[in-house]
Amino acid sequence: MSRPVYAFLGPEGTFTEAALRQVVSPDDGDYRPVGSVITALAQVRAGEAQFAVVPIENSVEGGVTATLDDIAGDEGLQIVREVLVPISFVLVGRTEMDLEEITSVSTHSHGWAQVRNWAAKHLPNAEFIPASSTAAGARGLLDPETHYQAAVCSPLVAEQVGLPVLAQAIEDTAGAVTRFVVVSQPGPIGEPTGSDKTTVVVPLPEDRPGALMEILDQFSTRGINLSRIESRPTGAGLGSYFFSIDLEGHLAEERVSAALAALYRLIPGVRFLGSYPRADQRRYQVPEHTTDAAYHSGQAWVTELLGRSGT
Amino acid sequence: MSRPVYAFLGPEGTFTEAALRQVVSPDDGDYRPVGSVITALAQVRAGEAQFAVVPIENSVEGGVTATLDDIAGDEGLQIVREVLVPISFVLVGRTEMDLEEITSVSTHSHGWAQVRNWAAKHLPNAEFIPASSTAAGARGLLDPETHYQAAVCSPLVAEQVGLPVLAQAIEDTAGAVTRFVVVSQPGPIGEPTGSDKTTVVVPLPEDRPGALMEILDQFSTRGINLSRIESRPTGAGLGSYFFSIDLEGHLAEERVSAALAALYRLIPGVRFLGSYPRADQRRYQVPEHTTDAAYHSGQAWVTELLGRSGT
Amino acid sequence: MSRPVYAFLGPEGTFTEAALRQVVSPDDGDYRPVGSVITALAQVRAGEAQFAVVPIENSVEGGVTATLDDIAGDEGLQIVREVLVPISFVLVGRTEMDLEEITSVSTHSHGWAQVRNWAAKHLPNAEFIPASSTAAGARGLLDPETHYQAAVCSPLVAEQVGLPVLAQAIEDTAGAVTRFVVVSQPGPIGEPTGSDKTTVVVPLPEDRPGALMEILDQFSTRGINLSRIESRPTGAGLGSYFFSIDLEGHLAEERVSAALAALYRLIPGVRFLGSYPRADQRRYQVPEHTTDAAYHSGQAWVTELLGRSGT
Amino acid sequence: MSRPVYAFLGPEGTFTEAALRQVVSPDDGDYRPVGSVITALAQVRAGEAQFAVVPIENSVEGGVTATLDDIAGDEGLQIVREVLVPISFVLVGRTEMDLEEITSVSTHSHGWAQVRNWAAKHLPNAEFIPASSTAAGARGLLDPETHYQAAVCSPLVAEQVGLPVLAQAIEDTAGAVTRFVVVSQPGPIGEPTGSDKTTVVVPLPEDRPGALMEILDQFSTRGINLSRIESRPTGAGLGSYFFSIDLEGHLAEERVSAALAALYRLIPGVRFLGSYPRADQRRYQVPEHTTDAAYHSGQAWVTELLGRSGT
Repeated sequence: MSRPVYAFLGPEGTFTEAALRQVVSPDDGDYRPVGSVITALAQVRAGEAQFAVVPIENSVEGGVTATLDDIAGDEGLQIVREVLVPISFVLVGRTEMDLEEITSVSTHSHGWAQVRNWAAKHLPNAEFIPASSTAAGARGLLDPETHYQAAVCSPLVAEQVGLPVLAQAIEDTAGAVTRFVVVSQPGPIGEPTGSDKTTVVVPLPEDRPGALMEILDQFSTRGINLSRIESRPTGAGLGSYFFSIDLEGHLAEERVSAALAALYRLIPGVRFLGSYPRADQRRYQVPEHTTDAAYHSGQAWVTELLGRSGT
Repeated sequence: MSRPVYAFLGPEGTFTEAALRQVVSPDDGDYRPVGSVITALAQVRAGEAQFAVVPIENSVEGGVTATLDDIAGDEGLQIVREVLVPISFVLVGRTEMDLEEITSVSTHSHGWAQVRNWAAKHLPNAEFIPASSTAAGARGLLDPETHYQAAVCSPLVAEQVGLPVLAQAIEDTAGAVTRFVVVSQPGPIGEPTGSDKTTVVVPLPEDRPGALMEILDQFSTRGINLSRIESRPTGAGLGSYFFSIDLEGHLAEERVSAALAALYRLIPGVRFLGSYPRADQRRYQVPEHTTDAAYHSGQAWVTELLGRSGT
Repeated sequence: MSRPVYAFLGPEGTFTEAALRQVVSPDDGDYRPVGSVITALAQVRAGEAQFAVVPIENSVEGGVTATLDDIAGDEGLQIVREVLVPISFVLVGRTEMDLEEITSVSTHSHGWAQVRNWAAKHLPNAEFIPASSTAAGARGLLDPETHYQAAVCSPLVAEQVGLPVLAQAIEDTAGAVTRFVVVSQPGPIGEPTGSDKTTVVVPLPEDRPGALMEILDQFSTRGINLSRIESRPTGAGLGSYFFSIDLEGHLAEERVSAALAALYRLIPGVRFLGSYPRADQRRYQVPEHTTDAAYHSGQAWVTELLGRSGT
Repeated sequence: MSRPVYAFLGPEGTFTEAALRQVVSPDDGDYRPVGSVITALAQVRAGEAQFAVVPIENSVEGGVTATLDDIAGDEGLQIVREVLVPISFVLVGRTEMDLEEITSVSTHSHGWAQVRNWAAKHLPNAEFIPASSTAAGARGLLDPETHYQAAVCSPLVAEQVGLPVLAQAIEDTAGAVTRFVVVSQPGPIGEPTGSDKTTVVVPLPEDRPGALMEILDQFSTRGINLSRIESRPTGAGLGSYFFSIDLEGHLAEERVSAALAALYRLIPGVRFLGSYPRADQRRYQVPEHTTDAAYHSGQAWVTELLGRSGT
């Protein structure tokens, strides 16, 4: 009997693998590291993997645009779960050495962005050498040909690679978190848990005052909070955007299905990308007039009026 | 076989009778003049009359508060039709006489309000004597004991009473119209005609900025125009209001039933008083995203998402 | 030295006189009873009276349309003060008699409206005879020719007229209040007191969804509560309205002057009818972001940006 | 006499230099290539350069987060101009060779993102080697030690470097444009031209329904269109955002200064980053009720009311 395949942004040791470990143990799932977010998602679309685990948002760096743009492109994928991974970085060296001696340091540009200030202060003489991943940057130190002396990576990679740690917790912003999503082909949506998110993609209809407000109004008028809103270019030119939105609630909840049906009326190009449990299990307050019970009583009233007969 | 009874604000000859004539011929309905709007409506509530025909709004004087307040008081009545009657007034006298000679003139205070400016100019010496109806004021002239010499009434009353017309078309505002409604006990609602009105009563929930806007937003966000909005005191104190609202559309139309269900969620005290054809048969423009077809496609999309199964 | 003239809806003993007594003592003002609200206001316009005291709203019967329509008609008048008068009614008779014996009872139609239910229960045999004022109805009983036996009037009139009181506190709604306004020609506006009202008249620009919302939004977006909103026909036909609005605040407060300037931009026909102290001296909560201090700091920021020079 | 220094993201030949050429000729400005957007901006803050030219937005890739985050961080910089540069890419090789032979190709990750699909199709065997800039990737080919065979860069770099062009116009999206801004220290704002943009940074006050709407309402209610809206994390945790917004109009226009003052009242942390001419000189339609003339007439009306004296 075959285990489901989980494609993820490799190589081993990345934060994405840390996310994947929260989703499924290596005993129950087949871990498949791939070279890019795009490849991971393509394997799911093609049925070569059952799931992909990809980063979607970082609390410091913002949205992961490759993920946002790829999953927004069609309705061929569905988010089924989210996972949060705390982000911390260490500096590893080929050997023990003083920080001042370091003249070049490698890591992925996203990683570099998160230690920029620390590096400006503690690595005054170091040039940044971009790597295709933080793990690749670290592993590069094992190659004697490599001309940089240090790398920024996760504690897990440092441990796996076995290189000396020159400094730890070097991230500029303590408490940084990256949010990953688990993606599959479209299928049945899980049951509401009372603490869910729904992800939608909404192309902004035209370049006019109030278009975005009209979209947001569909949520706020129904008491639906947005936990993420990200604008992305459609590629059709400056000023042409779509919005990637996470809202609090599940499609099977009345206020959410009403808001989505309303959005569809306004913007038929809206895309539903999934309803799934919140990783933090935080419960949200629903205004009394937009609970499922309120919706049912409003609908019952109208139904009764429409059906009544004479006395 | 008994004809249905139509209670209306009498006596004969009033504008209300003119409205009733548009609704049913005396051959097919039993005309029953009563002394007040309240009585007419009470007879319908009690089942003593099948219908009441009562004025609800005048294009010059505004809402007829007795009607508005009475039908708003509970859900025991339903508006099934509206009728428009053009309003014109004549001055009748006991005998032919010069206008300057007139020292007192009688009519209903609503009638008086509509000829006030004309009277100030042409009846400089006349005191106003209130009557219980314009017809009663005119008929009073037939009584030799009456101490006023003239009355303001409708052309129909003048004709029925047979008194000399001293001046005609004396209304201050040409083209005035009174709108009447035909009221029955609650029962089945007629089919949508594509040119309908719906009347609702909405208590204003509390004395705070935005409460009224929240109500109106339920209509405007769904592209529903309001053809009448009237504030009335609830009687509970200054600042406590309800709104009597006519909106364009029929309860059986999706955007209207959605708006009413939403209102009910916000304000469970909302009352539905009927959906009925417009007297002027004017058609309204519904924004494309709030047509029934748009609602159905939005609901179909959500239903399909909720029902889909894996591949 | 002449005392200012106060025109009011007479005759003596009416609730309007009770309002006037709160405004100025007979020693300091010349009380001038006139036959109608229209006449009182016309005397002020003409400079024949310095002030008029007229009813504008009743907690049970709603707006006094003659007042609303007349003061809304142009910018020739200004409200300088409001007065609240509790409304209670008594039944007086020509002689002591049983209520069942009464076959006709007189009063002003507004007064009748406020005792309708009581009368239906306790005066089963009485016909209603309209009078031009509650005081006139009562005084009519002193005339032996009068063919009605009882009248509904204020306790003050009953006392002045000296007729036997057959029943007291007969109003259907306990605690009813009528609100009067003191009106002068336009002039300087009093200082803000921290508990003020501002009255404006806003013609509804066109018959379209959202027009009223656009008006109300100017207030709610600035945290301004409305204490009264009354729709009135313009006389130009059904569906053509203006709104008479009382808002909480004084024109000299930034959020109010900003809202009014914004209304003027949208609807140049808007009319300002006065800023004056609330009779109940109730203070209102202003959201922190719309206090005068907040306005000043926002303007100061922009001014500083516009004025800054290079470094 | 010294020419002003323009810091820009080097090395020579980048699209940023192409932008700079539109701003000032090398005869009139001192071109100073630096290693990063951050460094360019830091030199302006420190007074070491008078101007920085940095990319802020790409029509395909979206916002340039390093620029957005850095200039949003305080009020130490001001945008004084924008420049648009069409983006096209070529593939250069160390020597003429077949595309299939290429096993590794270098460029900046942003450049790679824009040719991803072309590369997937035409460079089936190539691994991506990240470079610190597209120019650096190309120049690397001149170094015999470099282990990649090709690079993606701009036509200008290809020309400057003198390497064979293996393929041109290889960008996935034709017509792509990058928008650059010219930044200085805060100082006087240029005059309105009738076709301007204003850039502001607005921290989202709290995680609640409607907070973003409240912000946007300040613009839409004043008829101000947004040409760009970008959400960015504040770094304080998932769900904590600020918005970088370009709006159509100039601070010296009444509707813009009113909107900004209102924003300041709501969110004192709002930052103004400049008003400057649009690069495309497109003119925008201002609703009649929010023109400067409309603002002036509304203010004049209120001022007249406040200043009037008695008659």
